[in-house]
Amino acid sequence: MAASSFPLKDELDIVIPTIRNLDFLEMWRPFFQPYHLIIVQDGEPSKNIKVPDGFDYELYNRNDINKILGPKASCISFKDSACRCFGYMVSKKKYIFTIDDDCFVAKDPTGKDIDALRQHINNLLHPSTPYFFNTLYDPFSDGADFVRGYPFSLREGVPTAVSHGLWLNIPDYDAPTQLVKPRERNTRYVDAVMTLPKGILFPMCGMNLAFDRSLIGPAMYFGLMGDGQPIGRYDDMWAGWCVKVICDHLGLGIKTGLPYIWHSKASNPFVNLKKEYKGIFWQEEMIPFFQEVILPKDCTTVQSCYKELAKQVKDKLGKIDPYFVKLGDAMVTWIDAWDELNPPAKVTNGK
Amino acid sequence: MAASSFPLKDELDIVIPTIRNLDFLEMWRPFFQPYHLIIVQDGEPSKNIKVPDGFDYELYNRNDINKILGPKASCISFKDSACRCFGYMVSKKKYIFTIDDDCFVAKDPTGKDIDALRQHINNLLHPSTPYFFNTLYDPFSDGADFVRGYPFSLREGVPTAVSHGLWLNIPDYDAPTQLVKPRERNTRYVDAVMTLPKGILFPMCGMNLAFDRSLIGPAMYFGLMGDGQPIGRYDDMWAGWCVKVICDHLGLGIKTGLPYIWHSKASNPFVNLKKEYKGIFWQEEMIPFFQEVILPKDCTTVQSCYKELAKQVKDKLGKIDPYFVKLGDAMVTWIDAWDELNPPAKVTNGK
Repeated sequence: MAASSFPLKDELDIVIPTIRNLDFLEMWRPFFQPYHLIIVQDGEPSKNIKVPDGFDYELYNRNDINKILGPKASCISFKDSACRCFGYMVSKKKYIFTIDDDCFVAKDPTGKDIDALRQHINNLLHPSTPYFFNTLYDPFSDGADFVRGYPFSLREGVPTAVSHGLWLNIPDYDAPTQLVKPRERNTRYVDAVMTLPKGILFPMCGMNLAFDRSLIGPAMYFGLMGDGQPIGRYDDMWAGWCVKVICDHLGLGIKTGLPYIWHSKASNPFVNLKKEYKGIFWQEEMIPFFQEVILPKDCTTVQSCYKELAKQVKDKLGKIDPYFVKLGDAMVTWIDAWDELNPPAKVTNGK
Repeated sequence: MAASSFPLKDELDIVIPTIRNLDFLEMWRPFFQPYHLIIVQDGEPSKNIKVPDGFDYELYNRNDINKILGPKASCISFKDSACRCFGYMVSKKKYIFTIDDDCFVAKDPTGKDIDALRQHINNLLHPSTPYFFNTLYDPFSDGADFVRGYPFSLREGVPTAVSHGLWLNIPDYDAPTQLVKPRERNTRYVDAVMTLPKGILFPMCGMNLAFDRSLIGPAMYFGLMGDGQPIGRYDDMWAGWCVKVICDHLGLGIKTGLPYIWHSKASNPFVNLKKEYKGIFWQEEMIPFFQEVILPKDCTTVQSCYKELAKQVKDKLGKIDPYFVKLGDAMVTWIDAWDELNPPAKVTNGK
């Protein structure tokens, strides 16, 4: 099936954070060209970013973000790919696919190019099953089903809000692991998609990620990273932990596994260590926080869940470092900015 | 590496329930011959079961079980493969591998025979990580590790108690799914092992299963099925739910995924429906029961956890059907019989 006949053409935006010319799009042309791109410029606005001919795109640099959001622009990171979440906010589409500009088309074990976007949409269009584990993985994959012992009442599943794709070649390792295993490459093609069970957290990587903006968009905030912040490389992790607890609360699903992209080059582990080291400590308190967080029953929209979470972040994580107070405030600003650009009536939750 | 040099040769028994001659062992000869087999005869004791030459085995029929356990033999199912758990009880080894007699050696995608036993032992010898999901699957597999965002304090993991293997060709479907999809075959080789997260239940299939008997053996009771019982084909499921809640309570891990075996033929769906239909209803109440069960902190051994579970089964599931009262009693009998054959001092838990 040609990408141009893909049914969701007008319902999806591709969001790309970048500091350079987008030559990587050439390889994705057969898959991405039918879609609209939202490019969020991650560094100095004075730099001119070249986009290959034939792509339909809009590009936002820091000046644009400041102009559109005014004082609320403070919630969008500068000089960090965390700024990509601005693209989620200005999109008006149902689905978002976001990809890093050092990710290329991977090949499946038969040597065929993988249409990552198509697999993501397939993941999002089929239900998730977070309440019971299916040992043959995604029961909605071709040739698979629920196995013996899977309760029939749970087979309908829940709407899928997030599709988390993986990476061949350079794995998404933290700086310490990069330093210890500089030559490790991921060559294992695992032919599976699975629902993340309810109640368990996962490390959500923003490199190759799709989600249903109408279901979970306002929770996809990538936090305060980069310029002027004490931490980096936890933007997608933060978003993933927030998204997971909100999905669990609202009865939405998250899938991980296929599709793979080809991650071409490892970032500098020394630079990464500098960005990460506070996160490595803080994470040991952030994870128990997210494992124990309880959202009140009357939080029935993503926005109300997220504001409640922001409050708890300030109360509980604020004790670790003032950064979390600032982050909690930014979370509230983000929701306010989201609602300004996306009047709440148009956003539905999955209940 | 030849199977004969496999390091755990004297620490593992292979348990096989059967009603027929064990011709299927011919195909497994290179892998199984170095090990001791415990064969539990599943039907009329008068029938003579032939075992191919060269295998080291002991065989128990119903008369043997009655002789060894006396009145406690009532806890062992008759005319049902659930009787296999008797083999777990009489074994004196650290590890058990149990396999059905219609399961053959599968091939990996390169066409090589899969040494299922070797993969199971590998799974059991490496820790499990039930408290946080690793998106690149088992971090202890070759070429894999914990990804960015995985808390360092959780990387040590917990001891692995169970390794649940899968099946190519005939998938383990319930009777309704068999009836609806008579031609479905599992051809998807998913090259992954993963830890089942804490707090989530799964359908444990007894066809291709290994476990650390010293860690979880007394919980591997396959219940009352077959002759004289109102239900069948829930023996392994029951064991799996009990094992999972006890592993979660004691801080032990369960892995699922590799290795695959080749499941040669589907059982009769009409016969299966008759065995299963009460289970299909009851399951809708059993699952919430196991999802909500809480074991007291002072239950620190598998035996004490299991007896507490038996009590709760009688109290809570006994309301559904008198069968569960009988099952709860049988669970206690099982533990008493286990302790008689395996003085408790020799059994350690994983704490």
